[in-house]
Amino acid sequence: MPKSDTSRLYHQLVKRMRALADIKNAMALLQWDQETYMPKGGAQFRGQQLTTLAELAHRMGTSPALGKLLEKLLDKAELSEVERKNVELTHLYYQKAKRYPSSLVKALTQAANRCFMAWIQARQEHQFAVFAPELEKMIALKKQEAEILGYPACPYDALLDQHERGLTTEILENIFPPLQANLISLLSKIQQKPQPPDDFLYAYADKQQQWEFGLYLLQAMGFDFNKGRQDLSEHPFTTSFSPHDVRVTTRMHEHQLATMVWSCIHEGGHALYEQGLPAEQYGMPGGQASSLVIHESQSRLWENCIGRSLAFWTFHYPAWQKRFPTPFSHIALEDFYRAINLVKPSLIRTEADELTYHLHIFIRYEIEKKLINEHLPIQELPDLWNALYAEMLDVKVSDDVQGVLQDVHWSHGSLGYFPTYTLGSLLAAQWWEQLQQELPQLDEALAQGQTAPILNWLRKHIHGYGSLYTAEELCRRVTGKPLQADAFLRYVQQKYFRIYGLE
Amino acid sequence: MPKSDTSRLYHQLVKRMRALADIKNAMALLQWDQETYMPKGGAQFRGQQLTTLAELAHRMGTSPALGKLLEKLLDKAELSEVERKNVELTHLYYQKAKRYPSSLVKALTQAANRCFMAWIQARQEHQFAVFAPELEKMIALKKQEAEILGYPACPYDALLDQHERGLTTEILENIFPPLQANLISLLSKIQQKPQPPDDFLYAYADKQQQWEFGLYLLQAMGFDFNKGRQDLSEHPFTTSFSPHDVRVTTRMHEHQLATMVWSCIHEGGHALYEQGLPAEQYGMPGGQASSLVIHESQSRLWENCIGRSLAFWTFHYPAWQKRFPTPFSHIALEDFYRAINLVKPSLIRTEADELTYHLHIFIRYEIEKKLINEHLPIQELPDLWNALYAEMLDVKVSDDVQGVLQDVHWSHGSLGYFPTYTLGSLLAAQWWEQLQQELPQLDEALAQGQTAPILNWLRKHIHGYGSLYTAEELCRRVTGKPLQADAFLRYVQQKYFRIYGLE
Repeated sequence: MPKSDTSRLYHQLVKRMRALADIKNAMALLQWDQETYMPKGGAQFRGQQLTTLAELAHRMGTSPALGKLLEKLLDKAELSEVERKNVELTHLYYQKAKRYPSSLVKALTQAANRCFMAWIQARQEHQFAVFAPELEKMIALKKQEAEILGYPACPYDALLDQHERGLTTEILENIFPPLQANLISLLSKIQQKPQPPDDFLYAYADKQQQWEFGLYLLQAMGFDFNKGRQDLSEHPFTTSFSPHDVRVTTRMHEHQLATMVWSCIHEGGHALYEQGLPAEQYGMPGGQASSLVIHESQSRLWENCIGRSLAFWTFHYPAWQKRFPTPFSHIALEDFYRAINLVKPSLIRTEADELTYHLHIFIRYEIEKKLINEHLPIQELPDLWNALYAEMLDVKVSDDVQGVLQDVHWSHGSLGYFPTYTLGSLLAAQWWEQLQQELPQLDEALAQGQTAPILNWLRKHIHGYGSLYTAEELCRRVTGKPLQADAFLRYVQQKYFRIYGLE
Repeated sequence: MPKSDTSRLYHQLVKRMRALADIKNAMALLQWDQETYMPKGGAQFRGQQLTTLAELAHRMGTSPALGKLLEKLLDKAELSEVERKNVELTHLYYQKAKRYPSSLVKALTQAANRCFMAWIQARQEHQFAVFAPELEKMIALKKQEAEILGYPACPYDALLDQHERGLTTEILENIFPPLQANLISLLSKIQQKPQPPDDFLYAYADKQQQWEFGLYLLQAMGFDFNKGRQDLSEHPFTTSFSPHDVRVTTRMHEHQLATMVWSCIHEGGHALYEQGLPAEQYGMPGGQASSLVIHESQSRLWENCIGRSLAFWTFHYPAWQKRFPTPFSHIALEDFYRAINLVKPSLIRTEADELTYHLHIFIRYEIEKKLINEHLPIQELPDLWNALYAEMLDVKVSDDVQGVLQDVHWSHGSLGYFPTYTLGSLLAAQWWEQLQQELPQLDEALAQGQTAPILNWLRKHIHGYGSLYTAEELCRRVTGKPLQADAFLRYVQQKYFRIYGLE
């Protein structure tokens, strides 16, 4: 029997998209190497090599032949459900990519380079003014980008959609303000209670022991070292060159064992998702990690719901104590558990607890809206930042390095990115609630060191679908409910009521 | 003043060739990672990614637009000497690449994959018969390739030319047979003398100490760690992603310190060459490492002429002794020197001394000629191999793994490669003689740990020219003499006459 026309065309599409994925994955390796092993002197040529590959990928991803192929396939009725999704999404991305004039692509790349360098320098000199002019140019380009991409209600929507398909300000306005009020109320109750000690978390910890404990934790989560590895880098990250080669990185400081541990579990959560993508869908949307909300829901489920639970550490705390006997042999599990869940408003987002973390996000979200939808003058940014921190977290910013200069995101042109962190946490709590319903002995299993039931559930309900569904669609399919804050609020209330003895 | 037409066209060529180099260097990184850090599971997709990049590179390197550009440039009189060389060589490579039908490119790639797998299996099973049918197909393809490429006298010439531009059987026939006779005569004199002990070279040596000593040696040679690094791999190699990012690898076994040391110096020699290529010529022949003879002349100059000299170890042996006091604190420098220069016929090429090494090469050269120019039946290969080893080295092959299955080259389709190893040694001796004439206090400088004068000389006379000249051309430019065996014979005679007390 000869292959049908549809099957022949679909096969052509797969071939093209696999080749495109090959280029992008080669770029990912060049970037991974840049962060892990590349000697400093290699930077200039490496940048050039990445630019060449990016241009090639852009050309392949916007070629007229690809467009025609997609048009033909869209008309075919014989496609399977997954094939149709793959074709539709590829067509959507194709159309978006086509909208970018190559001048804008180049301008954004160059602006990001300059803006990032200015951010580095501004931090070194503790001078926001060094960063401001480059950030201003970047914001102007992002506004231009938003106009080219189009949006339902306001320009910021176009940027949100870049990080989570279909996400809008309207959606966020229904979720964030009530969540903010609830979190601030819970925070004020907590702050009336005495704080558990956590100084022992900052005791000296040997780096080799830390490294091995990190590997132990990844192993315990189900990370497949035959299909991945861990290395060192300045900032921890996860990358992937195929579902069979997923790399995480970590960093270690001798008095920051806890930072290493939860960063390791966080990246491990991202990595398990990448390892769980269907290899036979390589190159197609069905084989790619979804946009940021789902990805972040995986890292936060592992980092927080599992990795800061009493059940998880009931099993693993003895291993921690054995590796770091001083001072932990004298710290009881319950005290350890309270310390790793300490709630304390602070200046730095990445070091925040599960609760105040989101107040950091809301501050950035408010600022981004003003930058993109309104015309907030750049020089007013530090004052606005500091005022919001005083208002929401009651902390005083005395140095912009710990204030408006603390995140790298804006220097890369990543605006509309921060909200996905909070949505990822909300979704993680929804998965967690669903997991507890479907696997009723979950805490008991965790307390016995079993994580495979969780991983299998995630593989089946989430990882296996790649990016075929948005976070909202997947959430409804799996939990029957929209993506919302209810489960997260139940989760934090239950957790902190117990820890802080609230009622 | 507007740019001249020539300058505009030349700039276009440079842009195209730099992009092509970017792709090839990305491939080099993918291959480096495959040999150093890639988890096993990543192999399948990595192979696919490399194939995609190779196809892209081939397409870019044979595009009709590139051909037209080169034709136009060939007519321009205003090119500088280096520009003209760059254009002419690029045109030469373009024409060669165009000759390959894509079916042959694919057939060669696939045959190499299958042939390599069969070689691995044949070694595991100690069965040449497992390798034979795949090798037979490979030889047939290489004959086909030779016919497509064309040759002056015999098909083997086409394969020699692939590894060293302009190299022919006729050239080798003028050099190899008299050299062989001279080496066999010298070897028989040496074998009549008592052999110095070398058992201490196989004493236990801690791996961490070995690793650090390897880095120490690279540093001592002038390797720039800001523009390169060392990692571990199964088989040592050197690769480069730009002159500012050159990587060497090594391997360590606890009772093979010497193997690590001279492998490290050997790869270091290759790496110094790559680091010395002119960065502003990136992507053009003037910025690329030359073909194999010049590359090998660099590794062997460092490994043998310098790295096995009494002067070099006069300075560095104390560091060796300090790191490996047992047993070396009790071994005198002169005894150490004699041990590391022991001449002893053996079965394995890569472990051979400076003298018998070339007999291993001549055996392979004889066999390759018979395979490509004549019709040697594959099944007769082991017997021919074993007979030649008995005749030339007086050693008995009892297992094909230590015989005809010992080298990986043929499985990759690399025929015509082995002769460049010997030519590299001959050329190294010619550089060495020239160096001694131009830097008269050379031995004294080496004995004081100074290698910079040597490196500077190599940078100026060799590295700076990239692949603009063939080995023969460069040799004449630098030494005023053709590439020949005379200097090498003087070098080995002087060295071994002293060590073995010959007259």
